[in-house]
This record gives sequence, structure tokens and C-alpha cells, in this order.
Amino acid sequence: MNDLSGPPHHQVERLVRQALSEDLATAGDLTTNAIFGADDQSAGRIVARQDGRIAGIETALAVFSMLAGEVRTIVEIPDGHDAVAGAVVAEVEGSTRAILTGERTCLNLLGHMCGIATATRDVVALTAGTNARIVDTRKTTPGLRAFEKYAVRCGGGSNHRFGLHDAVMIKDNHIAAAGSIGEAVAAARANIGHMVKIEVEVDRIDQIEDALDAGADVILLDNMTPAELTQAVSTINGRAVTEASGGITLETIADVAASGVDVISMGALTHSSARLDVALDM
Amino acid sequence: MNDLSGPPHHQVERLVRQALSEDLATAGDLTTNAIFGADDQSAGRIVARQDGRIAGIETALAVFSMLAGEVRTIVEIPDGHDAVAGAVVAEVEGSTRAILTGERTCLNLLGHMCGIATATRDVVALTAGTNARIVDTRKTTPGLRAFEKYAVRCGGGSNHRFGLHDAVMIKDNHIAAAGSIGEAVAAARANIGHMVKIEVEVDRIDQIEDALDAGADVILLDNMTPAELTQAVSTINGRAVTEASGGITLETIADVAASGVDVISMGALTHSSARLDVALDM
Amino acid sequence: MNDLSGPPHHQVERLVRQALSEDLATAGDLTTNAIFGADDQSAGRIVARQDGRIAGIETALAVFSMLAGEVRTIVEIPDGHDAVAGAVVAEVEGSTRAILTGERTCLNLLGHMCGIATATRDVVALTAGTNARIVDTRKTTPGLRAFEKYAVRCGGGSNHRFGLHDAVMIKDNHIAAAGSIGEAVAAARANIGHMVKIEVEVDRIDQIEDALDAGADVILLDNMTPAELTQAVSTINGRAVTEASGGITLETIADVAASGVDVISMGALTHSSARLDVALDM
Amino acid sequence: MNDLSGPPHHQVERLVRQALSEDLATAGDLTTNAIFGADDQSAGRIVARQDGRIAGIETALAVFSMLAGEVRTIVEIPDGHDAVAGAVVAEVEGSTRAILTGERTCLNLLGHMCGIATATRDVVALTAGTNARIVDTRKTTPGLRAFEKYAVRCGGGSNHRFGLHDAVMIKDNHIAAAGSIGEAVAAARANIGHMVKIEVEVDRIDQIEDALDAGADVILLDNMTPAELTQAVSTINGRAVTEASGGITLETIADVAASGVDVISMGALTHSSARLDVALDM
Amino acid sequence: MNDLSGPPHHQVERLVRQALSEDLATAGDLTTNAIFGADDQSAGRIVARQDGRIAGIETALAVFSMLAGEVRTIVEIPDGHDAVAGAVVAEVEGSTRAILTGERTCLNLLGHMCGIATATRDVVALTAGTNARIVDTRKTTPGLRAFEKYAVRCGGGSNHRFGLHDAVMIKDNHIAAAGSIGEAVAAARANIGHMVKIEVEVDRIDQIEDALDAGADVILLDNMTPAELTQAVSTINGRAVTEASGGITLETIADVAASGVDVISMGALTHSSARLDVALDM
Amino acid sequence: MNDLSGPPHHQVERLVRQALSEDLATAGDLTTNAIFGADDQSAGRIVARQDGRIAGIETALAVFSMLAGEVRTIVEIPDGHDAVAGAVVAEVEGSTRAILTGERTCLNLLGHMCGIATATRDVVALTAGTNARIVDTRKTTPGLRAFEKYAVRCGGGSNHRFGLHDAVMIKDNHIAAAGSIGEAVAAARANIGHMVKIEVEVDRIDQIEDALDAGADVILLDNMTPAELTQAVSTINGRAVTEASGGITLETIADVAASGVDVISMGALTHSSARLDVALDM
Repeated sequence: MNDLSGPPHHQVERLVRQALSEDLATAGDLTTNAIFGADDQSAGRIVARQDGRIAGIETALAVFSMLAGEVRTIVEIPDGHDAVAGAVVAEVEGSTRAILTGERTCLNLLGHMCGIATATRDVVALTAGTNARIVDTRKTTPGLRAFEKYAVRCGGGSNHRFGLHDAVMIKDNHIAAAGSIGEAVAAARANIGHMVKIEVEVDRIDQIEDALDAGADVILLDNMTPAELTQAVSTINGRAVTEASGGITLETIADVAASGVDVISMGALTHSSARLDVALDM
Repeated sequence: MNDLSGPPHHQVERLVRQALSEDLATAGDLTTNAIFGADDQSAGRIVARQDGRIAGIETALAVFSMLAGEVRTIVEIPDGHDAVAGAVVAEVEGSTRAILTGERTCLNLLGHMCGIATATRDVVALTAGTNARIVDTRKTTPGLRAFEKYAVRCGGGSNHRFGLHDAVMIKDNHIAAAGSIGEAVAAARANIGHMVKIEVEVDRIDQIEDALDAGADVILLDNMTPAELTQAVSTINGRAVTEASGGITLETIADVAASGVDVISMGALTHSSARLDVALDM
Repeated sequence: MNDLSGPPHHQVERLVRQALSEDLATAGDLTTNAIFGADDQSAGRIVARQDGRIAGIETALAVFSMLAGEVRTIVEIPDGHDAVAGAVVAEVEGSTRAILTGERTCLNLLGHMCGIATATRDVVALTAGTNARIVDTRKTTPGLRAFEKYAVRCGGGSNHRFGLHDAVMIKDNHIAAAGSIGEAVAAARANIGHMVKIEVEVDRIDQIEDALDAGADVILLDNMTPAELTQAVSTINGRAVTEASGGITLETIADVAASGVDVISMGALTHSSARLDVALDM
Repeated sequence: MNDLSGPPHHQVERLVRQALSEDLATAGDLTTNAIFGADDQSAGRIVARQDGRIAGIETALAVFSMLAGEVRTIVEIPDGHDAVAGAVVAEVEGSTRAILTGERTCLNLLGHMCGIATATRDVVALTAGTNARIVDTRKTTPGLRAFEKYAVRCGGGSNHRFGLHDAVMIKDNHIAAAGSIGEAVAAARANIGHMVKIEVEVDRIDQIEDALDAGADVILLDNMTPAELTQAVSTINGRAVTEASGGITLETIADVAASGVDVISMGALTHSSARLDVALDM
Repeated sequence: MNDLSGPPHHQVERLVRQALSEDLATAGDLTTNAIFGADDQSAGRIVARQDGRIAGIETALAVFSMLAGEVRTIVEIPDGHDAVAGAVVAEVEGSTRAILTGERTCLNLLGHMCGIATATRDVVALTAGTNARIVDTRKTTPGLRAFEKYAVRCGGGSNHRFGLHDAVMIKDNHIAAAGSIGEAVAAARANIGHMVKIEVEVDRIDQIEDALDAGADVILLDNMTPAELTQAVSTINGRAVTEASGGITLETIADVAASGVDVISMGALTHSSARLDVALDM
Repeated sequence: MNDLSGPPHHQVERLVRQALSEDLATAGDLTTNAIFGADDQSAGRIVARQDGRIAGIETALAVFSMLAGEVRTIVEIPDGHDAVAGAVVAEVEGSTRAILTGERTCLNLLGHMCGIATATRDVVALTAGTNARIVDTRKTTPGLRAFEKYAVRCGGGSNHRFGLHDAVMIKDNHIAAAGSIGEAVAAARANIGHMVKIEVEVDRIDQIEDALDAGADVILLDNMTPAELTQAVSTINGRAVTEASGGITLETIADVAASGVDVISMGALTHSSARLDVALDM
């Protein structure tokens, strides 16, 4: 695997600044400022309290560089690697005020991203031995898309489109408005660039040929049983990428993957993963 | 109950703008713009797919007013009320482009906030008949604190402090640095205003008298069993507000509440609630 | 053709606010405020002084809604349509202060976007009768990408990728680092989602088979003569989309298009088009 | 006294950027750029021209780090300490362009904050020997609340609530709407968290028992004479914190403090303090 | 006098948003939201509690339009007019929550700007019958320059340069660096545009001829006595605009104005004016 | 010539952040991140592919410091100097990811600014031997005014006013509203500060005396032939600065300059210059 690459730097700056702003408002950290002096120094360790997959450690540590005091940091377990319960993910050393003031924001970022990465890792494991890639959706937390999609990659998953802006997804409303799958795809193709892929959502096997005729790059097989998926994959026979979506759970995913689909998308990775328990021990 | 009051308007604007920005980037909604015309009109209904507590419907509908086309909206189930599966939460009518472009952002906001409100509601129900208030923590998603804390209120919970800026919480690191609970509280009191409450975290019964002597307004009883909590409440005997925190689950919460504590705080309300399934039916 | 859809609303707000901010700073419009009263009303017409293709009229009129006084506007020639010299593109009526203060910002936006649309229209005309689509590049003015790429669409062109974020383009540096075209494409495919297209740049005919073998969706034929392009198109024979790029001028473009390439990209559309002369007549 | 802690870093960045932006706009410092070269170096001293209390020196020096050229700074008199007329508060050395361009913004920040700190110091001195704390109000300059409240702390005062968000203050309008003091406090308590204090404003002695019965944490005694205040303090007798407010001047404050009130709030500290005269000598 | 024109709209939006943000943070107005319902309506009047000159009433009322609830407003005394103690400056009617939540921010803006306008008015009155214009300086509150300079105009004063960006002011440091007044002016003229005026600061009569020879548009006569100013004006004899600055007080200003100088600049107008007492009566 | 001074730092930050944001959105550089590792290092050279005048090299290199990886840069040809085709303008060395990700944004900034500087240089050369200064107008690209006006200075030109805020320009609409040139100038003078210059636009010789009588500092001679300009200059005879504007081309500019006007303004410098071809060679 190549080195993972985190969210663009301007996104990190924006999110961390916003997070600190809501925690500090105008008054700052009343408790820490009252009890610790400006020159007090401390060292601490960011520790995983549960087994999990690390994601977002660089983003989480960026919190400290946005506070006034100097804090030096060392990453022990980089993104995309697993931590066992008790493992030290990173070490921090420097201004006590900065460390304590940034602690919660740092852990909120890290716990949230590791939670998604860990859930993704576990889903990926359930589909081992198949060709199916696990991907996210656009069901992300507002303001955190770059971070949550990156966490999915850290968990071994892949990304679906990042937004409405980078790929076409034709659903029933679009088809109804255009008149048919063919007309919808044609309208899309006429208005988008040559670097944009087109996915068509179908919920019945008999729509597949229309989608293929229209030249869909990807066919989303919506809410189909493993048996239906197997049939759909057979029908498509490599003429388009196949994606299973809708109603897939930890119980059904192995069967879904065994159907031979290329891609399985799960909104729950980003919208319903519990955070990983992480802590800062001084 | 008084009318709930949502997050400050400037917070709504900021979050919605950010959410739309990450979904639309520079290219906008490729699919919708290709297939629907500027004057196309549609009507839709935002529907709960699961039973749950509504939170954030006004925030979610604000998405449409930040897109170019005009969309009229009617709230059917306001924040703080319950929806059964299938219930119409709101109706939208107007520019098809605006409705379809805003759909996912609207639902992401609503589903996230309803998920928290619903989880809170369910926890509150488990403590019915006791005096314990269910409150959140600072373990919120970065950038969404105002929204998640409001969702907790919609679920019948209350809010702990909003950040480091509006109340003092003295934990073990602070006590160690100050030398004792008494010295830590004294340092805090000397540096904060008279409108700020002071909470002291204790993890042993024998620390309680020190905290009371120091004049703590609230005592956080950390990681105590229901039996220990009962003893602590009895010891404190109304001399301070009591808060139970740490390791509380759906299984233990009724016993925790029965101990007589005033407040029970649960980070999981905001950091690990699954979203409520909501959809926009055209 | 479907209705064109302009840049996302948050982009319009950002650009117009920035443009007004640099023109008004803290002091505002010294001249207009000194000579006209707050209640003075005027009417004016935005007029094309040259033949050209209209782009950005809605964006340009948004200037007035961001100033304090009320201004009503009517579009006479919408985006994507041609204006002859002297034609009225839009009418404005309302606060004299707002009209005069916004005039230059409005015209700067409109003239810039119409300039690009007109240049695109003229290039498209030169390739009439061929299948070649005219597309832009990432050589846009910083801060104006959404606007310039939209102007290209208004001119009858199409858009190449919008940025580094929505498609893969493998160039010589990437190939050298990866070791071969095949390895570069494989590395890309392993790290990107299934909705992302991959384009490979080749500058010699003998690289084409490698690119096809690697599964490139699009092959960029860099700096080739029309004769080489014809040979390349024949070699590729529909197995990938073909794009000609590099050194293409108004003199050579008809021959380039006649080679049978699918796409011709020209940076000059966005980085070197002269503005269209537009004016506001009171 | 513990080390003072300045406004949160993101507030400093925001205010300094805004201040430089309004001074430089798009053209920058016309005079300095015309006369000094990019490599010219200078040294200067920030000097107090009047006796006063220092506040904001770190904030003021942050101006130089936001300009392009490098400037090294040394603080000689930190916040919270007194400077006599002629004293050197800080030394700066580095890029002449940066020093001269930042000079006025630096001094505007410093003079404003020192003015408030000095006025606070002088009021605090008038109440020496009493238990009364001098506090500010929400009557601050828009955009500078964090800075002005910090300056009050530098002057030896304390802070009242930072905004509408961190404490409850029940005034006559609220009481009238709720029906009584008791109902107003009950409504507040039902809707706020357990970490929020409640203050009730009374303007007659006979309202005090209602406020105490309602459980007010703090009672604001509005526009009372020293004699009335003495009576009120006696009535309350430690059952709530007492705050005197309204119409208090330098002439009356000693008598007000002698009444035994815990807190005296004065809006004039932040809204009407003259700046301290500070200068930058090269 | 022509209608006054307030600060640019984007400046108003920025300042009001910032002011509300610091008052509301994430939690909003705890008191008002707890006690008033979403549909409660009220009417109120903004009243001057002291005689003074109105400035900023439109800016202050813009606060209400940035809060969620609807508030209708009527201006009774526009900017630039005088209010006697007790006069109604404006009326507001609508959402009780919005009115009470915005009250303090509204009054802070209004009181600050009226304070500056009133002080300016009073200084202008002291120079009646002379030709001297009263002008401000760059000694403004960070972030409020547009607002404070506008308030000076409302008070009957005029504006000096708005920043470093719109005029050249050559002081002793520049002269020392350039070698002489002549060389400093020449360097400036070579580097600035033809629309920029040049002012030269002199503190001795014998520097005046150098400044005139260099072609200064304006000569700043620094810290001179009325007698020296009279001599300087006579020496300059209309060959440049004359400005008196430095150490001018309410006691000396009439004599300064009688010297015949064209312009008198006073930093105290913006940096040390007390606020005008304004209130919102429901 | 003195060292040129680039746009204010906050403008550079804003523009570069915006440019990177539109290129990277949420997903970042898909290609580079897939193929290069986090620790890969490279060196490259920014090369001029055409002869031209350099402008904006510091701004363009600032791109790299806003990306996460470290990049060291050396400027070989500073702003305001000429580069021949093939010349190395700057060298960059460091993180491969940062260099490749920033490449296009860097070159877009540099090519745009060099294009304007080069066009200005060439126009200035055509007027050599005359006293005429070449100046820009307000016909700049929205969001880039500071950068484009700086590029004009790098090309040897001067700047007209930077916006509506720093100088008065009275045109026909203003004259019509005021009643006459004299009344328009008087209204302006009454409402602006003493540091603001006034320019009056005339399109007939017989308006000149009115403008001079009114005390215009600068007279804009609009759309006049060289012969008319010569007559106008003679009429004005040094009583005001003279500016020729309107319809001036490369063919006519030498004759315009020979008329003796002080200033020649050309909108095309900023709104229609082609970019200079610059590249980054690894």
C-alpha cells in the first residue's frame, strides 16, 4: 500500500480552527489558565483504549500547533495501522496549557476518525477473499466529508464520489424526468466533461440492459438480494462496474460480496460508526 | 416545555455553507443540472423511516434557502416531538434543482441530529421517575457542538458546559498541579468571574469532603458503581450538585439514576449515536 | 441544449463579496456617495459593445443584490446566447448609488466571462462538422475556476477535470516515478475510487499500447501534429477516449479536429482570452 | 497572582488580520514601501508615554508576525504590570518595512487595551480594603470582547459573564413575561444546564426575598444608593452573591464598596476608557 | 449637506456577525430562549438617554436582520442629526427573542458611534467661524475604522486618510531614511500613482520651504503653538493645505483654528470618546 | 528604482488559499498522492518559456508554503526584472507531493501576473522619451486587483486609483446629477477628506476650463485624438495633471504620448493580457 495522504491542508486548518473556536469562544480555557502558568511544561501520550485502526492522528495533532504554546509531537502509530488497546498512538510534549486546552479537540477528531476507520476495517475483513471493494457514500457528517472519506481509506475501504460535483449518479427521479434511462444518460453526457463517470441506479434486473445500452460506466444495484445480485453480475458480465447498495448489514455483507459485485457501498461507515475510545495520559 | 430554540443563526449559516461547499465544490450538481431545467418545479416530503425524536428540522431546511432556486417549506413535526416511521416531518416545494441539490445535505443534517435526539430520548426514558437529568459532554463532533447539544435538548436531555470557556471543571491533572483540591478550587476562584460555576471531579468517596470544603458547586463522581454513588449522594447531602459520569451504559443507567444523583453525563449521546433514517420522497 | 447552470451559489457570494471589498475597502464609493442621495433612483442597460457570447449575466447582476440599496434586474440575453454589438443584455433599475457603485464590478465579471465564452464559441465554430469537443484546462485564473469553466460551457465547449481532485491525469513525472505507464496506472487505480477516470499523457505513438493495456480511460496525445494524431486515433480505434493537447492554435485547430480526436483541450480559452467590451448605459 | 492568559489565539489572529486589512487594503503601505527597501533593518522600542497598566502587549506584537518581513520582539513589561511614563514596554527589531507598516495597528491595540486596564486598576484602587470585586459588563466594543475583558483582568478586575451564552441574567422584561421572579427563574432553570448560574436583577429591596426563594445564585442590585445597598446586603446575608450596578462613578464607588457588596459592575471600564498613550520610538 | 452614506455593506455584515458571534457563541441567549416563546412579539424604542449626535443607527438596526426572527424597524432620527435626552431614535417591532437577543449588540454599536459623533460635533462647534475642518486620524479601534470614520462625518468632521493605502504621509523616519524631505517626496512620487496626495510632517518652521519645494500637497504642522501655526500658515500662504496636529485639546482648539490652518486632526475623537448613553425601552 | 513591494500578506494568503481550495476541494491531488510517497523529495525549476517581465514570483512560491510538505525555494529573477525564454526564474526543492500538487496553482499565478507585467513593459517601451506614465484602470479581474496592479508596477507602469474608495472620479452621470462640473466637484469636495484627489472626465475641449475652475486635480481627456490631446494639454498648461484614456491601442499610443499628456490609462493591461508561458521542470 502506498502512503496514505490526509485531507488537504486548508481543510485541516478550517476544521481545527472551528473546533477550537467552539470550545474556547472568547474566554478560553478557564480552568487550565487559572491553574497552570504560561511556562509550565508537560508530556503526555495519546493512547488507544480499544483495539482499532488509526486514522487522523496528524489532523488531531495539528490542534496543538494552532494554540499559542509550543508542543512537540511524535507519531507512534501512523494512519492506516492498527492499535491494540493500551497502545501509544502519539506522544506530545510542551506547554501544559496548550496540551490541556487542546486535549479534548484532539481526541474528538481522533476518536471520530478512528471509529470510522475501525468500522471500515471490520467490514473489509468480512469480505476478504472476494473482489468486492468497500466504499463510502455521501452520507457524511456536514463539514467533515474530507476527514470521514479519508478515514474510510485508512480502514482499507475506497471512496465513492466525493460529492455532487465529481461524478454523475442517475436515480429514479432523474430517469422519470428525462423519460428513460437512455435519455437521462444522454442528457448527462451532453452536459458533462469527458473525465466524468456516469453511474445508473437500477432496482430491477430488467433495467440493466437499458443502462448498458446507454453506456453507463457503473451500475448501482439497489436493494437486491444476494441471489439477485449474482444474476445481475452475470447479466452485466463485465460490461460495466457493478455496485451493490442498500440495506446491507454485517450479517449479509459476506453473501453480498460473494455475488461477485465489484463495489459495495455502505452509508453506515460514516454516519453511524461509534467513536474509538482514545485518551491523553499525562 | 418552552419552545426549543435552535443554534444561533450564524452557526447555521456557517455549517450549511460548509456542507454545501463540500458537496458542490466548483462544479455543482452535475447530474441534476444536466437533466432538470432552471424552471422545473417539484414537491417533496421529508419522511422519517424509523421511529424517532425530531431535531434540526429548521436547520436542515435552511439548506434550501442557501441554494439559488426558491423552495417553500412547511414543518409538520417540529423539533422536540416524536415521529413514527413513515411520518412526514416537513414538506418542500419549489425549484427541482434546488430540492435535489440540497437533498443529501438536508438529510445528513437532519439524520445526524435526530439520531442524537432519539438516543437521548431513549436514555431519558430509562431514568423516568428519578430526579436525574441526562446531560451531554464535550465529546462532540468537531464543528457541530451547537447542533449536537441542541439535539440533546430536543431529546429531553440537558446540556453540560458548552466548552472550556463557560464553566470550570477541575480534574486530576489540575489537582496534582495545584497541590490539593482546595488549592485548585482557590486558584480557579481567584481567576474566574462570579458567574462561573466550579465542578470538581472525584473518583473516591474520601475526596468529597475536600471538594465540599473548597466550595465546589458541582461534584463529578467518576466511574463509581451505583452503590458508591448512593453513598456519595448521601455524603454530599445537598451541599453540592452531584454528577455521575464514566462507564455508564444503557444496562446500568437505571441503577445509576436510582442512586439519587442529580445529573448523569454520557459522551455516547453525541459521539456514537447512529443516525435516524430519514428520506426525501418526491 | 439544456438550461445552463451557473457556478454554485456560495461561489458567487464569495467572489462578488471579494470583488466589492477590494473596490470599496472601508471608505466606500467616495464619488457616488458625495453626489447622489440615498433615495435617488435610476435605470440603466447593460449593453454589449461587441458581438459576443453571453456568460455570467446572473453572476454579474448578483453584485447589486449585495449592495445596500434595492435594484431590480431583468435579463434580456441569457447565458449561452449571442449578443450583437449594441444589444441590451440586461436592464437594471433602482437605487442610483447601488447601480453606480456596483457598475464596474458587474462589468468586470461579465466582460471576463463573456470574453472566455466568445473565444470558446469561435473555436467551436472552427471545428464544426467534426466530432471533436473543445475543452478547457486547469490553466484558469486563481479564484475564478468555477466561473471560467462555466463560461467555457456557455461558449459551447465542455469541461476537462475541475481540479486535481476529480480525475487522475498521469504525466511523465508520474510515469518516471512509478517505473512505467502500467505501474503508474495500477498505483492510481489502487488508491482512487471506482468513479474516477484515469487519463494518461503520451507524447509518442509507441506509448499508446502501454496506456491501453493499462486500462486508461482517456489518452492525452501531447504536442502531436495532425498527421500523428490521425495515426494515434487509428491505433486507439475506440479503445479509449482521445484528447489532443499542446500547441494548438486557431490556425491548426481545424486540422487537429479533422484527425478524429474526441477532445481538444486549449488552455488559452481561460488564460488568455480578451474581455468582451460591455458597458452600463444609464 | 497566576500568569494571566490572553485571548484565545484564533481571536488574536482574526482581530489582527482585520486590523491590518483595513489599514492596508489592496495597495499596502504606500509611504514605507516607496522609501524603504525590502532588506532594510531597524530597531525600535514601544514606550509608555503615560503611567498605566499594561495589557495586550503580546496581542499587539502579534501584528508583526502577520506581516511578511521578519521582526523579533522582546517584552519588557508583561501584561498586568505597571509602566511609568517613559518606560520601555517592548523592543522590536527586524524588517523596517514590517515595523513601520505594523506600528499604528500595534499601538492602536496596545493603547486601547492598556487604557481599559489602567482605568480598571484605578477603580480597583478606590475599593481597596473592601471585599468588592470590580467587574465589567457586556457593554464592550463590537468585535473586541475577548480583548477588553482580558484587559479588565489585567487591571485587577474580574469578568462578568462573557455573553448571553454563558450565564443567565433575568431582568424586568423577563420577569414581566414570566409573571414573577419565581416563575422566571423556574423557566430558566428548566431550560439551562446545571453548570449555568442565574442572576436576578432587582431594583427594590422588597424583591430580594422573591429572588432568594427562587434560588438565584447572584442578585443584581440595580441603581441603589450605598444606604440601600447596605440594607440589601444585610437582608441577603450571604444567601446569594450580591452585585451593585448602575450609575456608579469614581466619586461614589468607595461608598458602594463599603456597603459590603461582593461585586461592582461598571460598563464604563470597557465602553468609555480613554486610550493609554503609547508610542514606538525607532 | 448631502445624505450621509454609511460604511460599505460587507463591512456592516462582518462587524455585526462578529459581534453577535461573541455574544452568542454556540449556546445562544440562554435567558431569553428560556423565558420567551418563538412566536412572542414585542415592540420597543431605542432612546437617547443623553443629548448627542446620532451615528450608526442603520448599522445598529442591521443586528436584528441577522438574527432568525423577523423585526421591523423605523428610524426616527437619522445619522447626522441631533437627539435630545429622551428622544426616540428608532422603533423596533417583532420577534421578542430577536429584539432581546440583539439589544445589547445594537446598543453597543450605536452608543460607540454616537459617542464619537457627539464628541466631533462638540469640537466642530468650538471652531465655528473659522475655516478649519476637524478630521480624524488612524488611531481607531481595530476592526472599526470604517464605522468610526463614518461617525466622525456624522459629527460634522471630515476624514483624514483611511489607511496606509490611500495617501502618503512622510514623517521623520522616512525623511531620515531618504536623506532629506526632497528626497523622501521624490521617492514617494516615483512609486505611487498620480491620484495619491503627499503630506509631509514638519515640526519646525524652517522645514516648510523644503516641503513646499518638494511639492507636498499637504503640510502637517506637528505640535506647534497657535503662534507658530499662524506663522506657518503665513509662510505657506496657500501653496499647500495646512494641517495642525498633536497635543490639541478642547481648551486650545479655538486658538489653533484661529491660526488659519485648513485642517485640525485629533486622534482623541476616535480613540477616547465616551459612548453616548442609549437604551432600548420595551 | 526602489525595491518593489508585493501585495499585502493577507491578500496573498487569501488568494493562494482560495486557489488551492478550488484545485484540491475535499479529495486532494488524486494522482500525486497515489503515486508518490509522503517522504519522496524532488527538485524543480520554474522556467520562462517566453521572453517577459517577471511579476509575482514571491506570491507564486507562497503556494508551496501553504501545502503540508516542506519546500525550499530560491528566487533567481525577482519581480520587475526581465527573463529571456528558457531562463530559470526560481528553484524549488523538497516534498515531491507538495511540489506537484502546487505546480499548476503556482504557474497560474505567475503566468497571469507576468503576462500583465510584460504587456505593460511593452507599452511603456512604446512611450519612451516622453513624460507619459502608463497606468492601469479598475478593469481588473475580480479578486485579483492587488495582484494585477502590482504586476503593472512590475512592468514599469504606475497605478491609477485602487478602487472607488481612494480617489474621486467625476464622470458624465455625476455631472448630470449635480447640474454642472462645478457643482459636482463642490459636492465631492464637501464630502471627502483633504487627502483625496479629484479627477474630472471631459470629452470636449470646451469643458476643460470648467474643470480647472472647479479645482480638479486631474483632468481625464476621454476618447480624444492625439491632435485634440495636444490642444487640451496646451489649454491646461500645467494647471492640472492630464490623463488620456479611451480607445488607445498599441498603434496609437506613441502619438498619444507625444501629445504631452502626463498619464495614459489602458484597461487592456489588466483585462486582456495573455499569460506569459511559464513551466515547472523537474
